[in-house]
Amino acid sequence: MALTFVTTNENKFREVAIIAEEYEIELEWEKRAYMEIQADSLEDIVRFGVREVCREIGRPCFIEDAGLFIYALRGFPGPYSKFAFLTIGNRGILKLMENVENRLAEFRSAVGFCSPGGEPVVFSASVVGRITYEPRGTGGFGFDPIFEVDGKTFAEMSTREKNLLSHRGAAIRKFLLWFKGESRQDMGG
Amino acid sequence: MALTFVTTNENKFREVAIIAEEYEIELEWEKRAYMEIQADSLEDIVRFGVREVCREIGRPCFIEDAGLFIYALRGFPGPYSKFAFLTIGNRGILKLMENVENRLAEFRSAVGFCSPGGEPVVFSASVVGRITYEPRGTGGFGFDPIFEVDGKTFAEMSTREKNLLSHRGAAIRKFLLWFKGESRQDMGG
Repeated sequence: MALTFVTTNENKFREVAIIAEEYEIELEWEKRAYMEIQADSLEDIVRFGVREVCREIGRPCFIEDAGLFIYALRGFPGPYSKFAFLTIGNRGILKLMENVENRLAEFRSAVGFCSPGGEPVVFSASVVGRITYEPRGTGGFGFDPIFEVDGKTFAEMSTREKNLLSHRGAAIRKFLLWFKGESRQDMGG
Repeated sequence: MALTFVTTNENKFREVAIIAEEYEIELEWEKRAYMEIQADSLEDIVRFGVREVCREIGRPCFIEDAGLFIYALRGFPGPYSKFAFLTIGNRGILKLMENVENRLAEFRSAVGFCSPGGEPVVFSASVVGRITYEPRGTGGFGFDPIFEVDGKTFAEMSTREKNLLSHRGAAIRKFLLWFKGESRQDMGG
């Protein structure tokens, strides 16, 4: 069975495709932007976005949104992580964290799925880690080089390693488990 | 004639009410949040938002959105200025600007007006200034204490003084001039 993932981000698609393989689900990549609202919660953002994009493309699909919430910065950059990455980048975050002792941060992920005419279903997960003092590693994307869990940044891990620990990996797994259950029911199980 | 301004921000309402007085327009304050989309352009944000909120309240109304676009930070915090203010604040911006020579920044404002059943009309304006090295002044709100024009920060100016120079003042004036013209036409002029 094939499942449509709507994202413009190739790195994200690759990460998620590897997890989908574990569940024997084939991902179809719909490379398009969808409408994102400004909200404090990623769940609200994907709920709105997946309903709209599902209406546009007319078939079941899912989206995923993630953000880095730094405790000492009151949750900055949070839902606007992509914009912060494209403007101030990892260097900007490290500058904001200069002389800040509390390095705790959370990467959060929300996944939204919708079928035409149906209501969105949302799954989320998070992982707590620390903001490093320097970027490390060349894997991953976005803020991965400055976020470490158990002494390794996400950019120092292979995609499979990151998927085991990451917010996105956890949220996607919750979603895919649910999706497989739903599909079985549809097939008369 | 009374005109409805939708905003949750009391400071913003007060600034705009003073300008409306000059045009002999009475402002009615509709204190409610409206849906904001994530977009690079304030114009797109107000166009979408005013259409939605006008549908909700069922009468002509306008909204205003503003942002601080810092050249050396590639336009950060831009459309997400409110979130950046509430999280990293003026201190965060000044930290990001430590050892940055190019202090140029732009405050931008977009005003959106809509009547039930009509298309939104959008007006915008901007003012170029500099990011200070320290916050100065107690007036205004948001990033006003760190944005200076002609040697004075917006927070060091009276509301009337700020309105003469500011992005918001300019965009609101454009809108009100247009609105008065439209109103005259409606009355058969």
